[in-house]
Amino acid sequence: MEIREQIFKSLSAVKEKSPLIHHITNYVTVNDCANIVLAIGGSPVMADDKEEVAEMVGFASALVLNIGTLNARTIESMLSAGIRAKELGVPVILDPVGVGATQLRTNTAEKLIKELKPEVIRGNMSEIKVLAGLEVAIKGVDSLADEEDSSVVAQKLASELGSVIAITGKTDVVSDGTRVCLLDNGHRILADVTGTGCMTTSLIGTFCGADKDYFTGAVAGIISMGLAGEFAYASLRPGEGIGTFRARLMDGIYNLTPEILAKEGRIRYE
Amino acid sequence: MEIREQIFKSLSAVKEKSPLIHHITNYVTVNDCANIVLAIGGSPVMADDKEEVAEMVGFASALVLNIGTLNARTIESMLSAGIRAKELGVPVILDPVGVGATQLRTNTAEKLIKELKPEVIRGNMSEIKVLAGLEVAIKGVDSLADEEDSSVVAQKLASELGSVIAITGKTDVVSDGTRVCLLDNGHRILADVTGTGCMTTSLIGTFCGADKDYFTGAVAGIISMGLAGEFAYASLRPGEGIGTFRARLMDGIYNLTPEILAKEGRIRYE
Amino acid sequence: MEIREQIFKSLSAVKEKSPLIHHITNYVTVNDCANIVLAIGGSPVMADDKEEVAEMVGFASALVLNIGTLNARTIESMLSAGIRAKELGVPVILDPVGVGATQLRTNTAEKLIKELKPEVIRGNMSEIKVLAGLEVAIKGVDSLADEEDSSVVAQKLASELGSVIAITGKTDVVSDGTRVCLLDNGHRILADVTGTGCMTTSLIGTFCGADKDYFTGAVAGIISMGLAGEFAYASLRPGEGIGTFRARLMDGIYNLTPEILAKEGRIRYE
Repeated sequence: MEIREQIFKSLSAVKEKSPLIHHITNYVTVNDCANIVLAIGGSPVMADDKEEVAEMVGFASALVLNIGTLNARTIESMLSAGIRAKELGVPVILDPVGVGATQLRTNTAEKLIKELKPEVIRGNMSEIKVLAGLEVAIKGVDSLADEEDSSVVAQKLASELGSVIAITGKTDVVSDGTRVCLLDNGHRILADVTGTGCMTTSLIGTFCGADKDYFTGAVAGIISMGLAGEFAYASLRPGEGIGTFRARLMDGIYNLTPEILAKEGRIRYE
Repeated sequence: MEIREQIFKSLSAVKEKSPLIHHITNYVTVNDCANIVLAIGGSPVMADDKEEVAEMVGFASALVLNIGTLNARTIESMLSAGIRAKELGVPVILDPVGVGATQLRTNTAEKLIKELKPEVIRGNMSEIKVLAGLEVAIKGVDSLADEEDSSVVAQKLASELGSVIAITGKTDVVSDGTRVCLLDNGHRILADVTGTGCMTTSLIGTFCGADKDYFTGAVAGIISMGLAGEFAYASLRPGEGIGTFRARLMDGIYNLTPEILAKEGRIRYE
Repeated sequence: MEIREQIFKSLSAVKEKSPLIHHITNYVTVNDCANIVLAIGGSPVMADDKEEVAEMVGFASALVLNIGTLNARTIESMLSAGIRAKELGVPVILDPVGVGATQLRTNTAEKLIKELKPEVIRGNMSEIKVLAGLEVAIKGVDSLADEEDSSVVAQKLASELGSVIAITGKTDVVSDGTRVCLLDNGHRILADVTGTGCMTTSLIGTFCGADKDYFTGAVAGIISMGLAGEFAYASLRPGEGIGTFRARLMDGIYNLTPEILAKEGRIRYE
């Protein structure tokens, strides 16, 4: 099946099944992640205590782990929920926010990858390079890495880990180790809003919760955010900015259909 | 006094007194809860550490406990604040988010109810049925229960616990064990936004902080959210969705007057 | 250099350098703080675990400490990050939210001030009076103090502590112990939105991260929020309220230029 048919099918499945997406995530963008899952057609739950996460993930169709504001309590919860998810065949989607910036982030991301073998890992180029053992210039949780060799890095890391690797940036790259897909939707204003990366990961999680084709899930999640960003930016009038843009971004996801997704996605294969 | 007069009086009291509403709540919707308390005319405070909550609740006119993302630390804080609230005659409003989904949630909700005898408990039909000891199909924190027998369940549980029970859904039900009130405001798009349940509980808390008639407080809180949802939905133009809706929802609460509340509420008694 | 030239230069520096602003803050307004830092041109990071904050602050240009929902874990993180910040010459900006309301807040604010000697402290009149050892009527985290003697209090406390003191209210006051500046931008609707105080502190942090003139940073941060509030309020149409206002507030910050800031600031010296 061609990729456009796949993403059409994947969004249709989200709308039909309304998969429950369990997040253990950061306190900065948690509300945005919950709302974007609802906007695309899924159902979010954000339980994060170790006493209940293994039980909660039993109801879930996907588990999103985001280390944006990790701490000892939630790291333990991520491992507990992740181990249970793997037992149950629930896909694990990892967002290694700021990995490389601190030892705690690097150690945690590496441990989660080793223990859980996530079905999808999404990060910016800096983050993915850290995971790939390559040298990068890190500044907080922002990316400074150049993005030229994204597709090589994505494909190599995907092969090594057996995970789908998604690198978001000016051009986004998704690879499962065999296929490499380049995506050109989006607008640079997305980088001026906090949590657009986290939200993209939550969208990927929602697709992966509805359709077991995780490569397609990563492609569909990224294109969804890119298209919504384009729509939202195009709607801005003089004097408007990221406040209005954020609301319109949610509107864009809410109004996305399988038809639009399949038609407007700018997809290239390498 | 007739219920429309009561809710008129209750919103007038909120606007006049600007009651301080102490929340111990979840990290997903805490910002929305703070803003909706401000929007209706109250004043929110979200302190949640056990070292200060008993002291903070001494300034408050109501205490809202929401178990959406409970953990060992905040459960202890809820009990500490709740016990002090009862000593001081500060009403306790409980939102048992996702009770029944995990043992931790069920145990915590039961403990809070037993120890604190909340003045009001607001949940969806699944959650209230769990508290009533009835069988339900739970899926995460969402409700799948049918809502036919809401009024019977609400009245019975209210009698048993001595609490006002508020069940929100397509038709909302409020009972104090004697009276049963059915409310028909709202729009189904409210379910597409995270936190509309939590926000309704915060509104109920604000009314209960200004006016000791807790049955009226529950009715007024629910109608407020329903009306704001109707206004917000009616304002949407093509291409708009839950992003814009959320902003307009806050606008709707902000512009609500005692007159509109009393006039536009769709209220039936059983 | 005259103050208008200084704030022009300071916002230009923010736009040019995009300073990384490390926050350890509350869970109510953390998303707003991250977005407002991005909107003005900075880059936020919200890491708050003691295992990584000292490392993370090494990348930062300023550290914002906000005690809105403090707890044992984050108090320790604030001290750890703060001590490292001082070693590195990274300015520390303190928002003593609700100090005086509980013993925990008072003790923590006093400890942070003693240990870290923050470059800037921003609060409302009640909070600053508590720090100055003056009597106030506290109600939760809201200010009830009268604001007549703001400039005296600000100047005295600034001299004592060696910090820039910023008191926000109807008229805002900034003092470094020598200079006292009165600011008249803003609109009272800002008090109807949660987090406008926190966001102002984050803006101050962003200016201080780009330009070592902290008195100017406090002035520029406060005027930015005031102007954005004026623009946002002026844009409201009938039926709109704080939901729309919040989005427009972010828009206002996003579209702020050094020219507008310097020209529209209402600044008086005492």
